[in-house]
Amino acid sequence: MKIAVLPGDGIGPEIVAQAVRVLQALGPKFDLEEAPVGGAAYDVAGHPLPPATLELAKKADAILFGAVGDWKYDTLARELRPEQAILGLRKHLELFANFRPAICYPELTAASSLKPEIIGGLDILIVRELNGDIYFGQPRGIRTSELPLFKGAREGYDTMHYSEPEVERIGRVAFEAALKRGKKVCSVDKANVLETSQLWREVMIRVSKDYPDVELSHMYVDNAAMQLVKAPKAFDVVVTGNLFGDILSDEAAMLTGSIGMLPSASLDKNNKGLYEPSHGSAPDIAGKGVANPLATILSAAMMLRYSLGMALEADRIEKAVQKVLAQGLRTADIYTEGTQKVSTVQMGDAVVAAL
Amino acid sequence: MKIAVLPGDGIGPEIVAQAVRVLQALGPKFDLEEAPVGGAAYDVAGHPLPPATLELAKKADAILFGAVGDWKYDTLARELRPEQAILGLRKHLELFANFRPAICYPELTAASSLKPEIIGGLDILIVRELNGDIYFGQPRGIRTSELPLFKGAREGYDTMHYSEPEVERIGRVAFEAALKRGKKVCSVDKANVLETSQLWREVMIRVSKDYPDVELSHMYVDNAAMQLVKAPKAFDVVVTGNLFGDILSDEAAMLTGSIGMLPSASLDKNNKGLYEPSHGSAPDIAGKGVANPLATILSAAMMLRYSLGMALEADRIEKAVQKVLAQGLRTADIYTEGTQKVSTVQMGDAVVAAL
Ligand SMILES: CC(C)[C@H](C(=O)O)[C@@H](O)C(=O)O
Ligand SMILES: CC(C)[C@H](C(=O)O)[C@@H](O)C(=O)O
Repeated sequence: MKIAVLPGDGIGPEIVAQAVRVLQALGPKFDLEEAPVGGAAYDVAGHPLPPATLELAKKADAILFGAVGDWKYDTLARELRPEQAILGLRKHLELFANFRPAICYPELTAASSLKPEIIGGLDILIVRELNGDIYFGQPRGIRTSELPLFKGAREGYDTMHYSEPEVERIGRVAFEAALKRGKKVCSVDKANVLETSQLWREVMIRVSKDYPDVELSHMYVDNAAMQLVKAPKAFDVVVTGNLFGDILSDEAAMLTGSIGMLPSASLDKNNKGLYEPSHGSAPDIAGKGVANPLATILSAAMMLRYSLGMALEADRIEKAVQKVLAQGLRTADIYTEGTQKVSTVQMGDAVVAAL
Repeated sequence: MKIAVLPGDGIGPEIVAQAVRVLQALGPKFDLEEAPVGGAAYDVAGHPLPPATLELAKKADAILFGAVGDWKYDTLARELRPEQAILGLRKHLELFANFRPAICYPELTAASSLKPEIIGGLDILIVRELNGDIYFGQPRGIRTSELPLFKGAREGYDTMHYSEPEVERIGRVAFEAALKRGKKVCSVDKANVLETSQLWREVMIRVSKDYPDVELSHMYVDNAAMQLVKAPKAFDVVVTGNLFGDILSDEAAMLTGSIGMLPSASLDKNNKGLYEPSHGSAPDIAGKGVANPLATILSAAMMLRYSLGMALEADRIEKAVQKVLAQGLRTADIYTEGTQKVSTVQMGDAVVAAL
């Protein structure tokens, strides 16, 4: 099985290296091929997603992705900036279904900003659409305003849109996921203001008819941002568009206090996928050997389960992670008094040993 | 001084009634004229913002607004739904600058989902643009998709846009506010993805040159949703567009745990304004006499300060509210053990007495 390994920028290379060690510890099962992506690719090839990297990603069975972005690329034109690599991969490979679990690990409850009784035991899943919405909508650009009050002024504009089949396919993904979990889907939109959301809601209601065992509810995005703070455990699966999903999945991840632990998967319709930690490239701590590799290691486990049909091996990795947490090992981001602070490599060592 | 009183739906009438009593307790200074708005207006006049209500709002010196919305109007066509009243007032009166303070009152720290050390003493101000963005952008609607993959399918679409003068005027409002506070402005956008945000950021940087004493920073909206959870006290003034402001201001309000205490102001360029509580119409508790009137009472205080030039009277009201909190009086939403639970009217009584 061929895995494209794309470490990227910031802490990406450090954390991906540990996930690769964990995969290798399972035996000689994988053909791992590495390629540059993001700022690192811009540095060597003049583009954040060079053709060779995209080709590798296309022919691989799955992609293990680190993170992209660094302040030093802030002055580049947008089409050359590191973020374009991840946006390009999602679009070119039609990775439309983004799974972002927000889990509060029992051992890490204290790391959350929230009170333990509110956050303890949280296990929700945000399903974010990744190929549509205002992210890729045309037309977009800078033009001259036609509004009477501002006529002639420069104006930036973007187009939000979703078609029925796009909403339907992500809806089905969310309902299928809910069937295997708590059997509740909360669809988040802004249907009291946006036409896109009105269509979104209409389609979700239609799709829900095929899933009589799953309870569908609707929530405006502003209210969802509040309810996640007030009573996050009331959710099971949340399904939403690309833009709202970007905001809410990050909010939910941070609520847990264990964002350094949270994996994510971005899948196409055949369950080929890209796997990456929910956190970013954290350039401020890059190269210091303190980053938490567990979200990437757990992303590798998700990859085995969803794309490579190796559920047993996925279980083994997840159990190994639980074991190192139970042993009290913590990287700096999840360290609390009474636990043992370890480096990125030491955490990798411990997971490999636990395997 | 003429004040338009628009109670609206749900708990709106109950809480506005208490704010009106507080204003009247200041003496015979105000010409208060009431009109229906939202669902209540639809019921009597067939439209959520009848011409007579809009006329009254236009000729008044300020508007005291309750809340709009109720499930029973969910099946109405969008242009007839209660929300259109508030959107219409903001647009027709050019109320472009929305002030949404997120304050954690010392007496109410325990009501928050967050740990006291994270949230205690929070005092930030979200400045949300209210007249532009995807809320009012044209074109919008339902059309046939032109995307190769989904060609011919129904597609909902909306247009996000901001022109330079629109960004500049809300930017100036935020910088002026910061000068009177902690001298920091964080501008929130999604400039790594949206053209609208790129122009937004460019203009904010330009405006900041006129405010050398204020520190400007930029944050992507997904990161802002996280940082509000992780370290809300790191913010002073947050300035953002209509859509991101909708989401982040609600998130911030809920973080405090005292959303029932938070007032808001929506101002035009001459400081004429509409004042409303940050919370909504809460139809589930309407008519039960348990709603918290303090956000509306504090909105009336904001009105005196910003629109009517009566800062001393505003101070008096705010001190009276502090006094009732210190006395231990609490409506159900902010009740914690050891305090005294009171009704909407009893809370109004107590504030009037404290004046
Ligand atoms: C890097 C950026 C373009 C990206 C997004 O907005 O989707 C990131 O925030 C994410 O959530 O994966
Ligand atoms: C009622 C709704 C249209 C409104 C908005 O989205 O602006 C509300 O959520 C608010 O924040 O005042």
